[in-house]
Amino acid sequence: MILLITGGARSGKSGYAEARTLAVPGVPQYIATAQARDAEMSARIAAHQARRGAPWRDHEVPLELVAALAQTDGAGPRLVDCLTLWLANLMEAGRDWRAEGLALAKALGSQQSPVILVTNEVGMGIVPDNALARAYRDAAGWLNQTVAEAADEVHFLVSGLPLKVK
Amino acid sequence: MILLITGGARSGKSGYAEARTLAVPGVPQYIATAQARDAEMSARIAAHQARRGAPWRDHEVPLELVAALAQTDGAGPRLVDCLTLWLANLMEAGRDWRAEGLALAKALGSQQSPVILVTNEVGMGIVPDNALARAYRDAAGWLNQTVAEAADEVHFLVSGLPLKVK
Amino acid sequence: MILLITGGARSGKSGYAEARTLAVPGVPQYIATAQARDAEMSARIAAHQARRGAPWRDHEVPLELVAALAQTDGAGPRLVDCLTLWLANLMEAGRDWRAEGLALAKALGSQQSPVILVTNEVGMGIVPDNALARAYRDAAGWLNQTVAEAADEVHFLVSGLPLKVK
Repeated sequence: MILLITGGARSGKSGYAEARTLAVPGVPQYIATAQARDAEMSARIAAHQARRGAPWRDHEVPLELVAALAQTDGAGPRLVDCLTLWLANLMEAGRDWRAEGLALAKALGSQQSPVILVTNEVGMGIVPDNALARAYRDAAGWLNQTVAEAADEVHFLVSGLPLKVK
Repeated sequence: MILLITGGARSGKSGYAEARTLAVPGVPQYIATAQARDAEMSARIAAHQARRGAPWRDHEVPLELVAALAQTDGAGPRLVDCLTLWLANLMEAGRDWRAEGLALAKALGSQQSPVILVTNEVGMGIVPDNALARAYRDAAGWLNQTVAEAADEVHFLVSGLPLKVK
Repeated sequence: MILLITGGARSGKSGYAEARTLAVPGVPQYIATAQARDAEMSARIAAHQARRGAPWRDHEVPLELVAALAQTDGAGPRLVDCLTLWLANLMEAGRDWRAEGLALAKALGSQQSPVILVTNEVGMGIVPDNALARAYRDAAGWLNQTVAEAADEVHFLVSGLPLKVK
């Protein structure tokens, strides 16, 4: 079972994704793509960890997501939080994000244990002035479409409430 | 009955909220959180008032929303327009917006007359460069979730059309 | 049949709109509102053309959309891509965009051949600092509501997947 959860900032995506992961039998595996580079990010990560609490097994995976899915398959349901940070990490590292996105979609097709993936809507504001920001939001939209196509279910969160779009 | 109406800028939230309020018997109470601080804002408020017209009783409530709900309960259906401006007012005044948001959610649980609340989606664009803007959109997302949980119904407006999410 | 397709940047709107247009019998008419003014825009237009391929008849219509609908009625289904660029073109040319939007809505009421229109959600981010950007997103929201009212169906795309809102 592959579930993609999308929505805006603070729309309740992570809380909903955690609840859905915990509803699956097995040891929940938390695959975090975030890296604690500054105080704001460290605080965000600590808040996420404090809310999740005991049963989780944590993995820090800023880049090698496809390998992490292979390594954790069979260990329990996996929660990937989140794809948009993974994309930003790939871009910053100069990796071929399009090839990585296609490899992820392919890998999702052959998982034994469930995968719940969190992503963000970033393309519903005014067109950014900044060319890098425009390139990023185009890439994020492409990645969301690509993963949604590989997913069994896609839920869009609004004010903490899921709208099923697939 | 507690109804939360969310959506982007100019997605038809206020018009829809007004129609829903007028459908309830009683004298409709308009609780405006906006303050006319500059010409653009004055023009926006005047346009809203002109559209609404005669039957409404108007209240200007930039900060004391919980008290205003207590005072107007029993007088007729209340329309609160909007929560995101109330939040900005609270932040600017240095108030504890989290405590106020929780107090609002609690108060909504004990109203006799209906309350229709309008809010905005502000978290579906590119992550803002500005730390204050990031803090605001996080707070707005939290407030929307908190009020949505206390609401009986939540509608998300797209191009003037309501999608029921709760 | 009038169908409005809305959604964020790279949410799959154009691909979905093309598929819907090709599902209608007749020679598909592509009414592009884009103008190739810089390298980024030229690349975007070329990518759209390459994906669409052979059967389409192309029309470049930066401003005279109502006239173009009259001229192509009867020739086959029309795909208008997109309304938000048309609006930006009207504003830049100093045209009365509100009058043009109302004329479009009226014209949509009397078409013989189907019209599929693509637009963008631009109002779900943080309020822009820039007054021009705020005026544009207000106008875009108004145009989306106005065309949605004239449409038989409205679909909101999330991660490439359509949510029917009308």
